[in-house]
Amino acid sequence: MNTVEATPFEQVMVAGGERLRALMDDVEQLLAEISAGHGPELASSAGATLAAGGKRLRPLLVFICGAGAEDRDPLVRAGAAVELVHMATLVHDDVVDSASLRRGHPTVFAVSGRETATATGDFLFSRALSLLDGNQRGEQVRTLANACLALARGELVQRQDAYRCDVSVERYLRRCELKTASLFAAACKLGPLAAGENGARVEVLERFGHRVGLAFQLLDDVLDVAGSASSTGKQRGSDLLDGAVTLPLILASQSDVELAALDLHSVFSREEAEQVCDRIAATGGLDETRKRATDLVTEAKRDLGASLSPEVIALLRLVADRIVDRYS
Amino acid sequence: MNTVEATPFEQVMVAGGERLRALMDDVEQLLAEISAGHGPELASSAGATLAAGGKRLRPLLVFICGAGAEDRDPLVRAGAAVELVHMATLVHDDVVDSASLRRGHPTVFAVSGRETATATGDFLFSRALSLLDGNQRGEQVRTLANACLALARGELVQRQDAYRCDVSVERYLRRCELKTASLFAAACKLGPLAAGENGARVEVLERFGHRVGLAFQLLDDVLDVAGSASSTGKQRGSDLLDGAVTLPLILASQSDVELAALDLHSVFSREEAEQVCDRIAATGGLDETRKRATDLVTEAKRDLGASLSPEVIALLRLVADRIVDRYS
Repeated sequence: MNTVEATPFEQVMVAGGERLRALMDDVEQLLAEISAGHGPELASSAGATLAAGGKRLRPLLVFICGAGAEDRDPLVRAGAAVELVHMATLVHDDVVDSASLRRGHPTVFAVSGRETATATGDFLFSRALSLLDGNQRGEQVRTLANACLALARGELVQRQDAYRCDVSVERYLRRCELKTASLFAAACKLGPLAAGENGARVEVLERFGHRVGLAFQLLDDVLDVAGSASSTGKQRGSDLLDGAVTLPLILASQSDVELAALDLHSVFSREEAEQVCDRIAATGGLDETRKRATDLVTEAKRDLGASLSPEVIALLRLVADRIVDRYS
Repeated sequence: MNTVEATPFEQVMVAGGERLRALMDDVEQLLAEISAGHGPELASSAGATLAAGGKRLRPLLVFICGAGAEDRDPLVRAGAAVELVHMATLVHDDVVDSASLRRGHPTVFAVSGRETATATGDFLFSRALSLLDGNQRGEQVRTLANACLALARGELVQRQDAYRCDVSVERYLRRCELKTASLFAAACKLGPLAAGENGARVEVLERFGHRVGLAFQLLDDVLDVAGSASSTGKQRGSDLLDGAVTLPLILASQSDVELAALDLHSVFSREEAEQVCDRIAATGGLDETRKRATDLVTEAKRDLGASLSPEVIALLRLVADRIVDRYS
């Protein structure tokens, strides 16, 4: 379940100064060109998706992690490629969910139908990889293609585990790694790769992305149980209605036998879903999930290590904090 | 509209001898490994698609065009990658069409639902590109990624032109180039690229693939109007019921004013669709489309040129003839 992404990481942008601002402007322009440069049939569908924006968190990670780049173009391409993949998953998610709105805008699915939306998602995936191929470095394409693979596998696992309240914590975490952490990790790895870096620093950054991405998904799942519609754009319990069994419910089921016996197929209405949310909250399942996420963020910040510049470390810590803040 | 693909190119295999047979066996094994090697969640969905087979025409083209290869592995990867992309389009087509059967087997959509089928298609696209990336040659990944792009654009154009009987011949041909010829051309280009070749011969082969692929689509569209369900596995007029305006109808509309005034939205039943098919056949629109296709095949065979070995030329001509034969 991808969440609504409206909160800009403005504080990070301010701290990142002119360089970061210029890169973010460039990625926006490149995304607009890609949308416009492939004939009217795409512009009318993908254009809306691109224009709908989002916080561009993944390109931001690419640019922060690729601080050593001398040439801006490979970095901008990498940032745009990662965002295109993210968009592709959103477009396909909306097809699967028959969703009519995203970020307050009509989805490609709603405007152009299932066929066009499916093809638009395919286009965005392909365009991401061909764009990155422009960097002429095989490892970058490989990194992104493997992230795409992981995303698709994550969706497959999610469908397999739907409505299964007996799913283990380990399997849930594996699913989050596949469907969310993989692209965060790829973003943090692509930054230094696009900057021509290799070696241990790349691994440090990739691990940071992995942990922060995992925390991002855990907090997203907390939000679905705890959050208010006004702050998130979606109502509580959406995951439950979709049959998505997430960590708050898994943990809650360990102490609440009635939740453990729950058949999610019987949760039909918004009201019923909210009652289950309240029940989960009463067990401490939310607090425990939130703690796991903040622990991950703490580890991610701690292990940035001495090989990175103080500026990069400061910016990444800020991103990590903002991710936690979004949900507090 | 991808057609049922059941006719094996057995005569080509016989002419290709032991080398071709071994490569085709290898690609089958690699596809099976890929299906099995990514966890049970994929094996249960993609496994069915892979096992359902098909004639493997695209890998066959890769292997014939890559006759100069000393190392088999890059060639087998290229063949498998092209087939995975083809499968990905089939899986997504079945989602879009809510199709329950393909090649006589239940579709991924029918067995596992919309979500799993969408993710499976995404997986197959990604796996194709990461597989080809194993060849460590940027141009190969670029070639396939661009073909994926073209396929997605072709689907977008098809949706935009749905139910539009005023679509021009040029626009129809462009759509066919995008959604079909592009992958045939990529297959014929990837063969020599994977064999380490460059230069004019690659272009000759790519052009061959483009023309033969275009002819393949034209003949497929003829089949939808003229063919019998027993030989093709689908009934006449399916394209009309889907709102797909193809060359036989476009040409027929030029001489039959009632067809020109037809609103495809009003064609609901199988019987109505068959009546339109009969009407198209009466105008000569089928013969003209068939002639365009055979002209393309004649040109494709003629322009193979002296730079290719006699064996490669003979095999490609055989493939081209078999493509025409399938529809005669």
